[in-house]
Amino acid sequence: MNTDLQKRIRDSFARQTVMTTVGASITRVEPGEVDIELPFRSDLIQQHGFYHAGVVTMIVDTACGYAALTRMPASAAVLTVEYKVNFLSPASGEKLIARGRVLKPGRTLTVCFGEVHAFADGKEKLVVRS
Amino acid sequence: MNTDLQKRIRDSFARQTVMTTVGASITRVEPGEVDIELPFRSDLIQQHGFYHAGVVTMIVDTACGYAALTRMPASAAVLTVEYKVNFLSPASGEKLIARGRVLKPGRTLTVCFGEVHAFADGKEKLVVRS
Amino acid sequence: MNTDLQKRIRDSFARQTVMTTVGASITRVEPGEVDIELPFRSDLIQQHGFYHAGVVTMIVDTACGYAALTRMPASAAVLTVEYKVNFLSPASGEKLIARGRVLKPGRTLTVCFGEVHAFADGKEKLVVRS
Amino acid sequence: MNTDLQKRIRDSFARQTVMTTVGASITRVEPGEVDIELPFRSDLIQQHGFYHAGVVTMIVDTACGYAALTRMPASAAVLTVEYKVNFLSPASGEKLIARGRVLKPGRTLTVCFGEVHAFADGKEKLVVRS
Repeated sequence: MNTDLQKRIRDSFARQTVMTTVGASITRVEPGEVDIELPFRSDLIQQHGFYHAGVVTMIVDTACGYAALTRMPASAAVLTVEYKVNFLSPASGEKLIARGRVLKPGRTLTVCFGEVHAFADGKEKLVVRS
Repeated sequence: MNTDLQKRIRDSFARQTVMTTVGASITRVEPGEVDIELPFRSDLIQQHGFYHAGVVTMIVDTACGYAALTRMPASAAVLTVEYKVNFLSPASGEKLIARGRVLKPGRTLTVCFGEVHAFADGKEKLVVRS
Repeated sequence: MNTDLQKRIRDSFARQTVMTTVGASITRVEPGEVDIELPFRSDLIQQHGFYHAGVVTMIVDTACGYAALTRMPASAAVLTVEYKVNFLSPASGEKLIARGRVLKPGRTLTVCFGEVHAFADGKEKLVVRS
Repeated sequence: MNTDLQKRIRDSFARQTVMTTVGASITRVEPGEVDIELPFRSDLIQQHGFYHAGVVTMIVDTACGYAALTRMPASAAVLTVEYKVNFLSPASGEKLIARGRVLKPGRTLTVCFGEVHAFADGKEKLVVRS
């Protein structure tokens, strides 16, 4: 069953063309948990050289959306209705990992939370929380 | 003075490399008001063919950030600390326009609000509010 | 029909006992629009003498909840699932008015926005936006 | 020093008159951590008998505000600028405990998170997350 889940999520992820555009990949799929990884690229930044807030949001939104989808029937579709994102530190470093987790699954509304960690010089730092 | 403001904002926008990556342009710069336009591209979508929520957020974040910057001294820099985004309808159509407006300027914290409208078949629709 | 709506909303409001506890009253009920008024009382404040953020939130939540209810069938019930509130200025003055408005009605999820204005010395000031 | 901190926070809490009005008390003060407890009262409810969302928000806002204050100089004052609250389940039971924790202290802006747990029949349930 986990193989089915993996396949279902990864197939859907492959249709999120913007993930290819920015170079993100899905690195973890478990029930209620999805991770997305994004290596640094100089064409993803804002004016001061940090990852653009929207790019960071994009991967945490996708991680949360698919985390929600893991808890839904195979026929279900998921759509973001709202999120709140706190930027704790400017996001920089060799790569980002966004972790989406289901907080409360629901029939019509699933609540998730997400974190983004930045990796630089072998150190990990929490940069975003949603 | 408005020419200086225009130049300052547009120069900074040009350094947001991710705007070029997704094909966004800045179409309005006035004190407290900035608009960003994003034409549809098939490499910016999520799994159902809509603009990815993160892409939509990216342009409204940039519109709000620069709206804030228009109200700050020329030497100032701006960094997003948090946002909340509501997705009212799936975003589709030929282009999106994000409108960032300053609600309350502050010395260390400026509060903005933003809207994104989708344009399809000559009609405009509010799809996002932050 | 508007009389029915008025009665339905006001009857429900009367069962929100906390509204009586803080001294709030409902001053406007129209389709998609509800206002709540709260006169100042010295037992509703935080440590610096301003209306407590939670009290301000309480009236804007009630205004938004009932605004949503005006757009729902008579048999429906409404429950808050989430909100974001921005405090633009400390809330002080003789009274507050919270205005709840429906932004997007939905079958299972209705999106509203709210504002709270403070009235002092004959002047009105926007203090909260949700 | 912890005695000084305790005294500073508890003295300020005593000036939040609305806490007395609703019957809330402060039950834990540690660096970066404050808990607020609220016993059920039938005059704090919304129309279906649950604790009003605004009351629940009030105690988590106070818990977060004082958690922030524990990490600031003795002369500092704290003011809420914004929050987002998710209501995971209707809040009912004999009492609520709100736990405010500092996520990122800052010179001008401190980011906190909060949870509210409801206690009923000897069981504890997470009802709110901010």
